[in-house]
Amino acid sequence: MSLLVIGSVAFDSIETPSAVREQVLGGSAVYFSYTASYFTPVWLSGVVGEDFPQEHVRLLQSRGIDTAGLQVVPGAKTFYWRGRYRPNMNDRDTLDLQMNVMGQYDPILPEKYRSCKFLFLANGSPQTHLRILEQCPGASLVVADTMDHYIRNEPEDLRKLLKKIDGLVINDGEARLLSGEENLVQAGQAVRAMGPRFVVVKKGEHGALFFSQFETYVLPAFPTPQVVDPTGAGDSFAGGMMGYLARQGDFQPKTLKEALAYGTLAASFTVEDFSLDRLKRLTLEELDQRMVEYKRMLSF
Amino acid sequence: MSLLVIGSVAFDSIETPSAVREQVLGGSAVYFSYTASYFTPVWLSGVVGEDFPQEHVRLLQSRGIDTAGLQVVPGAKTFYWRGRYRPNMNDRDTLDLQMNVMGQYDPILPEKYRSCKFLFLANGSPQTHLRILEQCPGASLVVADTMDHYIRNEPEDLRKLLKKIDGLVINDGEARLLSGEENLVQAGQAVRAMGPRFVVVKKGEHGALFFSQFETYVLPAFPTPQVVDPTGAGDSFAGGMMGYLARQGDFQPKTLKEALAYGTLAASFTVEDFSLDRLKRLTLEELDQRMVEYKRMLSF
Repeated sequence: MSLLVIGSVAFDSIETPSAVREQVLGGSAVYFSYTASYFTPVWLSGVVGEDFPQEHVRLLQSRGIDTAGLQVVPGAKTFYWRGRYRPNMNDRDTLDLQMNVMGQYDPILPEKYRSCKFLFLANGSPQTHLRILEQCPGASLVVADTMDHYIRNEPEDLRKLLKKIDGLVINDGEARLLSGEENLVQAGQAVRAMGPRFVVVKKGEHGALFFSQFETYVLPAFPTPQVVDPTGAGDSFAGGMMGYLARQGDFQPKTLKEALAYGTLAASFTVEDFSLDRLKRLTLEELDQRMVEYKRMLSF
Repeated sequence: MSLLVIGSVAFDSIETPSAVREQVLGGSAVYFSYTASYFTPVWLSGVVGEDFPQEHVRLLQSRGIDTAGLQVVPGAKTFYWRGRYRPNMNDRDTLDLQMNVMGQYDPILPEKYRSCKFLFLANGSPQTHLRILEQCPGASLVVADTMDHYIRNEPEDLRKLLKKIDGLVINDGEARLLSGEENLVQAGQAVRAMGPRFVVVKKGEHGALFFSQFETYVLPAFPTPQVVDPTGAGDSFAGGMMGYLARQGDFQPKTLKEALAYGTLAASFTVEDFSLDRLKRLTLEELDQRMVEYKRMLSF
């Protein structure tokens, strides 16, 4: 089934306790589409400046990602983020953020994209997300991400959005902020009651919680000893999850759980190197092999 | 198989964001023996002052726990701890700590206890633990806990102890402190290399990591929406784990994993009320029912 993602395409500068990488390829739509491409063709919608190298576009296209919806704004610069990870590699501080072309981004989707069946709305304002939804009337599964910034500053549009989407993927801190509940199980259930049929709460190195009307469960992260750069882990999780769902063509409870597991493993590879470097070397066989290990790990 | 625990028997005063409980029954040996008693008879070794009520002793005995090794020191007071949980219910601050009778506690085990096959050394100094080991030459499985205090202040005795035990159960912060590694997978593997055949790293609400020479895995905590008082969760985990192992009478990899799962669930009940209040109402049927749910949660 067709899978569309709308999100950021970015330059990231990453500082970890042991290394620094300047101006590497990043952005939610990039990580998402790259991991989703292991399962299904992906349509990408995003915006970059004229400083964005063609080699990055070719890298995405080499994975079968459709970049017809990647706008290039002449004379403008690409979205830029600089962050520093703390020694625990789970918390990070934003050192610099330049919205650049993302500032006025209001996607007008190519005609072809409007027929998408599976849609993921990555980081962006609820208002923008609502306008995208209008352009995709035939989508059978819509999942969104959101951020603390929009929870604080656009609560009304976010409430509207929550009533129109099927699933929400957010991190633990955002779930607490949005619900006002400290206990994550209560937080997840409260967010689900705001509208989405299911909610996934990402806990970084501690895995993810899933909430639907009938189920609450947790899947742990895959215990990797090699965490080099956590950037993009959450978007890779969403990409693995949505990619698998789109390939299966349904979102029954059983499929959803398998999809969460693939998302978990996609994220576990992403963090093993900077930017997309580990993903560039990743084969579907490795992903499937880790799935065998993961299932064995959880069986007793 | 016979299971012996040596640890604290205490009065706890607990402050959470929503309630306060004064001078309730607590202590590592209490939580441990109570949860282990669902699986096997337990021998308890500990010390209290003459202020310790008989009803607490009777409560333990009602679960088949042998209290022959519970010393009562005339004229002395029972170990006392007062703590306050932060809003996240995972971090806590010690507000008061009175060692009292625990200060000079150096257990001389009853003759019967010295034949124990399964031994758990709960919170106590490595030096004391080493002396207990000499009294139990026939133990076939020895597992210990330790604390940041001993990692910092008795590193040499702790190193000696680590070479003589089969398993170590510690929390995430202690694993990092002991190993000097931030990544928990690396930390657990480093601690295992110090001697024990296996290491369990407890992550509180995020579950536990297991490390042996051949296996590394993670089991998530059971997602309970009702966290009233996390005190004793770690000791209940150890009690469920060791109780199950003693009942099965072996510690093969398969049995160990099942044991970790039972420990996880024992802890999930403990946190649902103050002190032993939830455990007092717990039936083995409830525990087994939650195991069915837990296994279903992890299957896909």
